[in-house]
Amino acid sequence: MKLTSLKDGGRDGTLIVVSRDLSTAVQVANIAGTMQAALDAWSEVEAGLRSTYDMLNDGRLEDAFALDPAALAAPLPRAYQWCDGSAYLSHAELVRKARGAEMPESLYVDPLMYQGGSDTMQGPRDDIVLADPDWGLDLEAEIAVITDDVPLGTSVDQAVDHIKLITILNDVSLRLLMPAELAKGFGFFQSKPSTAFAPVFVTPDELGSAWNGRRLALPIMSHVNGELLGAPNAGDDLDFDFATLIAHATKTRSLGPGTIVGSGTVSNRNRLAGSSCLQERRMIEKIETGEFKTPFLQYGDTVRIEMFDPQGRTIFGAIEQKVVRP
Amino acid sequence: MKLTSLKDGGRDGTLIVVSRDLSTAVQVANIAGTMQAALDAWSEVEAGLRSTYDMLNDGRLEDAFALDPAALAAPLPRAYQWCDGSAYLSHAELVRKARGAEMPESLYVDPLMYQGGSDTMQGPRDDIVLADPDWGLDLEAEIAVITDDVPLGTSVDQAVDHIKLITILNDVSLRLLMPAELAKGFGFFQSKPSTAFAPVFVTPDELGSAWNGRRLALPIMSHVNGELLGAPNAGDDLDFDFATLIAHATKTRSLGPGTIVGSGTVSNRNRLAGSSCLQERRMIEKIETGEFKTPFLQYGDTVRIEMFDPQGRTIFGAIEQKVVRP
Repeated sequence: MKLTSLKDGGRDGTLIVVSRDLSTAVQVANIAGTMQAALDAWSEVEAGLRSTYDMLNDGRLEDAFALDPAALAAPLPRAYQWCDGSAYLSHAELVRKARGAEMPESLYVDPLMYQGGSDTMQGPRDDIVLADPDWGLDLEAEIAVITDDVPLGTSVDQAVDHIKLITILNDVSLRLLMPAELAKGFGFFQSKPSTAFAPVFVTPDELGSAWNGRRLALPIMSHVNGELLGAPNAGDDLDFDFATLIAHATKTRSLGPGTIVGSGTVSNRNRLAGSSCLQERRMIEKIETGEFKTPFLQYGDTVRIEMFDPQGRTIFGAIEQKVVRP
Repeated sequence: MKLTSLKDGGRDGTLIVVSRDLSTAVQVANIAGTMQAALDAWSEVEAGLRSTYDMLNDGRLEDAFALDPAALAAPLPRAYQWCDGSAYLSHAELVRKARGAEMPESLYVDPLMYQGGSDTMQGPRDDIVLADPDWGLDLEAEIAVITDDVPLGTSVDQAVDHIKLITILNDVSLRLLMPAELAKGFGFFQSKPSTAFAPVFVTPDELGSAWNGRRLALPIMSHVNGELLGAPNAGDDLDFDFATLIAHATKTRSLGPGTIVGSGTVSNRNRLAGSSCLQERRMIEKIETGEFKTPFLQYGDTVRIEMFDPQGRTIFGAIEQKVVRP
């Protein structure tokens, strides 16, 4: 099943069910008006949504309409909880080297997670509004899962059952604001502006054998200005899987429904796979040639992030964003 | 005007208007069903809520009922954005000294702010559920403001007009999880479990001359097991006021309505004022006597946080929490 939200309908948008090929959609106000409402009552609404999805795929719904990606908000336009991990240590090692920061030994045994801001999620075609081109704007292509209610002290094994939906996202980052902000000791705030999401969330069954309950083993493709930046496989070199990240997040708290748990930038140790952010490519350039070559994103630049199934069909649709002035 | 939410009514509770003396309340479903709904449409609903408040205070509402603090959720039971500052540097200096961390020079010119988790806010009488008594459980008494929509790049002067509501809170902290978590470089996650809030949010006019548009100049009283821990004046030694904190938060993003912006632990340089958390008292003991004496919170301990106006009347009602096992 594939779900998302129209921008139309207010701050929380309007929940729609989307066909498997992303060509058509239908409103489901009689089941749940918004994505949050669906997640708040997932066990009650899932069957009805799935039934609608089956009929939509079969072309049996008269009120189905053509899906316009530009009309979409983030599938969850504002969320109550956005926990972003940094579960590919290959990425952490490279970007820390790039900003001259150390790699604590604890990162190899204890998942790194930061608290993201979630009040203004961006849709798949929303512009990236950049106030200052000198802030070092970068993309970060990631996988994320969306949970139902997760109790305090959930184990890794228990966490698997709380993963209800999966998506990809662009964790927009301002690299040149990070060193000063992180030096203050309390993590990111200004250096992580609003995150952008793929057109749809999908249920795990849509991923077939690429999803093993804890990780998604497919390449995530990132393009900048039409040029391939990388297509690392999200199933490789994942040091902490989603069940482990969820268990980490619930050590001292419960999680509300609609919690988004991110993988951090997808990164493979095999450099032929390329990168999911510019900072990694820059650091590799620096290591290999002695200097940074690739610039950060500038006004007018475009970013595209997408994932295809083994048959070459898009799963989540594409994130396509352009960098603009305020 | 004073507003809050009943636990009853679902995950977002039920919005109620509360009388100035906190004795009675009334539902306002015809105006807004939840606190978030009111904040989403503040300019349209404010007049109606104020009119209800006036009638409630005058005893003219037949459907008014006695207010039971135990029936209250957090005024905003789950929020989309919780930005917590650390605006009293006296506190930052003491707790950093306590954990052997440095005080970067930048903290004296650039506000420190971290991204809080906001999906499971606690009500004023909710227990603090502590899984492990060795985590170093502590209270932190703070002031917070709640905003409407705040655009990207809002100036300090513009920020003043976006402050719609004010409250006090207990930013529950796990001191002994902090050193390892902060060493990873991305700030708090496990060491900041769910925050608890006072019974009500109030509009700025309720604070009279104690509120100057940017800071609240009254003592915030914290008790542990009935003993006074401190009553520092929130208007003194505030190094970054709320307008400055909001401007800081909007440097790279907009803020959604219902954003909560916290002051960080209220702390005065005058040690006779006492402390708003145990860690400060412990550090002062260490400095003065060579050893920590006051323990962190244990099962069965109680915390009370409250603020009174110059006439001795409670403004927000009391946060009263007990520490319990899961």
